[in-house]
Amino acid sequence: MGLTVVYYYTGNFTVIQALSVKEIIASIITIGDELLIGQTIDTNSAFIAQQLNNIGIRVARRVAVGDEEFAIRKALDEESTLAALIILTGGLGPTADDITKPLLCNYFGGTLKRDQATLAHIEKLFNEVYKRPGATLPRNQKQADLPDNCIILPNPRGTAPGMLFQKKNRIFISLPGVPQEMKDIFTASVIPFLQKNCKTPFIIHKTLLTAGIGESMLAEKLVPFEESLDKSLKLAYLPQYGMVKLRITATGADQAIVSQQIETSFHQLKALVTEHVVTDKDEKLEVVVGRLLLRKQSTLSTAESCTGGLIASMLTAVPGSSNYFKGSVVAYANEAKENLLGVMSSTLATKGAVSEETVHEMARGVLKQLNTTYSIAVSGIMGPAGGTPGKPVGTVWIAVANCQKVKTHCLQLGFDRTRNTQQTAIVALNLLRQFILAESQF
Amino acid sequence: MGLTVVYYYTGNFTVIQALSVKEIIASIITIGDELLIGQTIDTNSAFIAQQLNNIGIRVARRVAVGDEEFAIRKALDEESTLAALIILTGGLGPTADDITKPLLCNYFGGTLKRDQATLAHIEKLFNEVYKRPGATLPRNQKQADLPDNCIILPNPRGTAPGMLFQKKNRIFISLPGVPQEMKDIFTASVIPFLQKNCKTPFIIHKTLLTAGIGESMLAEKLVPFEESLDKSLKLAYLPQYGMVKLRITATGADQAIVSQQIETSFHQLKALVTEHVVTDKDEKLEVVVGRLLLRKQSTLSTAESCTGGLIASMLTAVPGSSNYFKGSVVAYANEAKENLLGVMSSTLATKGAVSEETVHEMARGVLKQLNTTYSIAVSGIMGPAGGTPGKPVGTVWIAVANCQKVKTHCLQLGFDRTRNTQQTAIVALNLLRQFILAESQF
Repeated sequence: MGLTVVYYYTGNFTVIQALSVKEIIASIITIGDELLIGQTIDTNSAFIAQQLNNIGIRVARRVAVGDEEFAIRKALDEESTLAALIILTGGLGPTADDITKPLLCNYFGGTLKRDQATLAHIEKLFNEVYKRPGATLPRNQKQADLPDNCIILPNPRGTAPGMLFQKKNRIFISLPGVPQEMKDIFTASVIPFLQKNCKTPFIIHKTLLTAGIGESMLAEKLVPFEESLDKSLKLAYLPQYGMVKLRITATGADQAIVSQQIETSFHQLKALVTEHVVTDKDEKLEVVVGRLLLRKQSTLSTAESCTGGLIASMLTAVPGSSNYFKGSVVAYANEAKENLLGVMSSTLATKGAVSEETVHEMARGVLKQLNTTYSIAVSGIMGPAGGTPGKPVGTVWIAVANCQKVKTHCLQLGFDRTRNTQQTAIVALNLLRQFILAESQF
Repeated sequence: MGLTVVYYYTGNFTVIQALSVKEIIASIITIGDELLIGQTIDTNSAFIAQQLNNIGIRVARRVAVGDEEFAIRKALDEESTLAALIILTGGLGPTADDITKPLLCNYFGGTLKRDQATLAHIEKLFNEVYKRPGATLPRNQKQADLPDNCIILPNPRGTAPGMLFQKKNRIFISLPGVPQEMKDIFTASVIPFLQKNCKTPFIIHKTLLTAGIGESMLAEKLVPFEESLDKSLKLAYLPQYGMVKLRITATGADQAIVSQQIETSFHQLKALVTEHVVTDKDEKLEVVVGRLLLRKQSTLSTAESCTGGLIASMLTAVPGSSNYFKGSVVAYANEAKENLLGVMSSTLATKGAVSEETVHEMARGVLKQLNTTYSIAVSGIMGPAGGTPGKPVGTVWIAVANCQKVKTHCLQLGFDRTRNTQQTAIVALNLLRQFILAESQF
């Protein structure tokens, strides 16, 4: 499904007026009752804000309203007094509770007309992607009825395209609420459109992913660096489970100056936290680990108890991971630890499932069973139940191994199951990364 | 840390005026730059909206603004023209970028005064909870400086209490942005206060989770039902990967009438889509499957290739899952399918890793290896690479089994790796659910 035209004009739409104010202020309006009764957590706004920030557009407000005509109109009126760019998401589906499209058409003074290119795309989707040839209903076809005064932003994966309107030198962009569809349109159409039509300052971000040091300790360490930082540069701390991402942002009118400034500061920053740096690119830990394994032509397996397959799931979410990841044994029950990993029943009986000895045997077991260069093993008590005075909730043992040696590590985490699971996965992957790197140094 | 007094009056605050409008409209203002650059996903608003809905208060809007005086004042002015209740979160921390408290104090015409009870609480926190006796800094002590015209809402886990103000018959409640602290104050102080001081209508939501039918088909089927629906009731479609959640909301003054109306309509709705209903509660598919297994005192294992451990990870994210889930073999490499699951090399050679025969053998293999009542096996091509003309990207084979029989199913999905993986996991879990239910009927 190659997408060559990222947006195209309909009928009577003329030339868009470029936004060329000194600073472009944006506002995000999210539409949907589900946002106001707390059924859905809005992740779209964060994505949009990030993307706009990357190209030098500042988001000043975000507003969420229900599927109500009055509320949507009021938001459009109010936000356009403040912002030059208004991004709307949601309210474009085929069902009766979606009222956004006709409302926008009317608000901007257009008429709904069937767009043949969009109709053909909807039918192609049903025939070739959903594999339900001829199953388009009138309500699906109606999604090709679009205002004749908008720029259409094609939706490669879905039936509702995005729409771009202009009114009184304000640009309004309406996108579907399904996160993946919204993201596709945003990346393929919205960003290129804005880059072409808006004069924005030059912005460069550079990120450093660190692990093994808390946010406050990092901040303490970086006080002199922050104080000496030029005013056109900004340092942000983005804490994640078990890691902190540091981002430097440089803004200015001159590309050469901005580039040089950020390079110099980024180099200084890296030198200050060098022992904690996982990567100096904006990428995930599992991608870094995967690249390391590929470079060493090595393979990996995992034996997971308390993480329940999360580490395997993170590793395999990376395209191409079958080149280095062979598999995992999720040994939730002790029986599985014995049968599939060869953990001795005496170890389980005397030391317990959550012990250094057990993860040691798990790591050796999966290494042998799946015949890999490296293995990771984890066993812990994630909560809310299962803790004992000797091993409270949050106790986790991790082992990383190759055929010569096993390295173990104990964590004491908190009381939140989801957080504990995520954090264990991150710490285990980082331990493996350090294990491989240490080995290479000898 | 027993919390007996949930809120208390400061100096010159008089009697709060009860909100007794016909319907109480609320608005949520979230404050913080991190929300506008996409660094933080706002989960507080969803929690607050749910809680308010439960007691019959409708949230009409949510607004996010940065740590800027002008933006916060504008939001306060605007939201109070619409809403009788305004909930604010964020901006109450001890660092320099938090400006909310002095601003609110000034906005409502009060003066900051040191509150001794709050100061004592802060010192107790440092001594007994954070285990850093005597470590309170002036910036921490300053958190006990509170407006003399608010009701203080104590924060058992944190240093910044909530504050309740009244202006022109509008109630404003300001809470810290740390999710757990906000939730504690909301549950202990805000809800009881609102229940005591507001006359609210009854709101009841009921949800139905469906699988195996698309949103449009469902909507088509429900046209007559929607048309006959009483005006006090509202039906919403909430699509998810491979599933659609249907939600009916009923609103009214009389609890008995509202309850009866929603029961009748919900019953009708259920009957119309009965073959697609997964659960009539607001819960996840993996929770439904888990309960079914518990009730039958059965156990489950999974053999996952293309989902890479996601099904195991979803199952084990449910507390108590160790009672029915024994483990998984994530057999990403063919070698793992042979060694750990006993898939025959001749099957892999003649039929391929993505075939009915292979998932059949995987399902039997893991059932035997982990000695469980049921098993799920999946193998597919998730993309972006790996497709062939005969087996394009998106081809997935699924098997569910018990010791007597194996049921297989083939999916043809799209081109998106993440979406394919999620959807496969949902379809596989639903197949198992149907397999177990069908078995029980004989």
